Amino acid sequence: METYTHFQEQLEELKQNLLKMATLVEGTIHEAVQSLVQRDSQLAEDTFKREKQINDMEIAIDEMCLKLLALRQPMAIDLRFITSAMKIITDLERMGDQAVNIAERAISLNQEPQLKPYIDIPRMAEITESMVKDVLDAFVNRDSKLARSVCERDDLVDGLNDQVVRELLTYMMSDPKTISRAVHLMIVCRCLERIADHATNIAEDVIFMVDALVIKHHADVKE
Amino acid sequence: METYTHFQEQLEELKQNLLKMATLVEGTIHEAVQSLVQRDSQLAEDTFKREKQINDMEIAIDEMCLKLLALRQPMAIDLRFITSAMKIITDLERMGDQAVNIAERAISLNQEPQLKPYIDIPRMAEITESMVKDVLDAFVNRDSKLARSVCERDDLVDGLNDQVVRELLTYMMSDPKTISRAVHLMIVCRCLERIADHATNIAEDVIFMVDALVIKHHADVKE
Repeated sequence: METYTHFQEQLEELKQNLLKMATLVEGTIHEAVQSLVQRDSQLAEDTFKREKQINDMEIAIDEMCLKLLALRQPMAIDLRFITSAMKIITDLERMGDQAVNIAERAISLNQEPQLKPYIDIPRMAEITESMVKDVLDAFVNRDSKLARSVCERDDLVDGLNDQVVRELLTYMMSDPKTISRAVHLMIVCRCLERIADHATNIAEDVIFMVDALVIKHHADVKE
Repeated sequence: METYTHFQEQLEELKQNLLKMATLVEGTIHEAVQSLVQRDSQLAEDTFKREKQINDMEIAIDEMCLKLLALRQPMAIDLRFITSAMKIITDLERMGDQAVNIAERAISLNQEPQLKPYIDIPRMAEITESMVKDVLDAFVNRDSKLARSVCERDDLVDGLNDQVVRELLTYMMSDPKTISRAVHLMIVCRCLERIADHATNIAEDVIFMVDALVIKHHADVKE
């Protein structure tokens, strides 16, 4: 039993590390968007440093998962949990890449006059950050209801994105001098949309995993 | 020994399935871009069907990997191979999503007069398709040299993308009526760029995996 308990402790440690990585990613997205909103390119530079930490965490957690698989040879539910964790950290790492893209665009945009007040973009960022946080909570707690609410929020992000793109197109059509800045802002929106997509991908996996367990459980009960 | 041989056969089957999935993805990207180039929206509809096949293949291969992990409890090198395969199929599936995005834009663009001759975009697509093919070959053959050539091609794709974006900006600035089509085309380019990024991500993992094996091997020899 002691070995079993030790394994459970390691799984718990894995969960804590996943949550830590998600918090770091959430903070990095926030920082990247703030570097745009506050027109503070130093914040953008900080984003690049944080992204390196995210990459290091990915490698460390990946190693941890491999060790758990190799040494513990877990079965069924734990096996699925660990392999899902390995996929999730890849998603988190790529969200970090998107945050870097946002920060790079912010640096360019901060060198020119502000095209328009930033209202929808921080709102998109706020929803996206909440998706990152909640989808990891949903994963570690196997909470498919919370995962479903993450999928629903993806539609809000897409809706806001469409709205901003339409608005930016209007700017571009009425004044060609705005085109370059408008394209930068469109790409910022697309990065946020992509982060939300990553969160939604994870959420779908969580739903799949939890529902498969439910179906499996029902099948077991019938047997 | 028979069990060992059977395990090797199953690994071989996994490799074949990965290559098949990559071929399907490559074909889907090609089809999506052709639906734009040939202005054939029926081809775009076919892309949507193919993408469903890609999704099914992802689930089937994922299950296969889980079974291999659960029943075979592979060690070290095979373990890393299987967990990498599970990540790679996620990348392949998302490349399929990008192909669908391209096909959707093609349908919109095909309803309007063609903005410009499509020369760089098919070229980008061609390089990107070769990256998808080669990175999977690099993975199953543990060929880090080929993986490095995939990473190098990513710069070509980025270069072409920058070129197309600059050209499209010129169109937009000189004639606002082109803006909506130009934005669609920019997004097509970005989808191709993202597919190339996925291939590059896989290539980096292959290099990491093979080099780690080399380093490990050197360490073993020294012991």
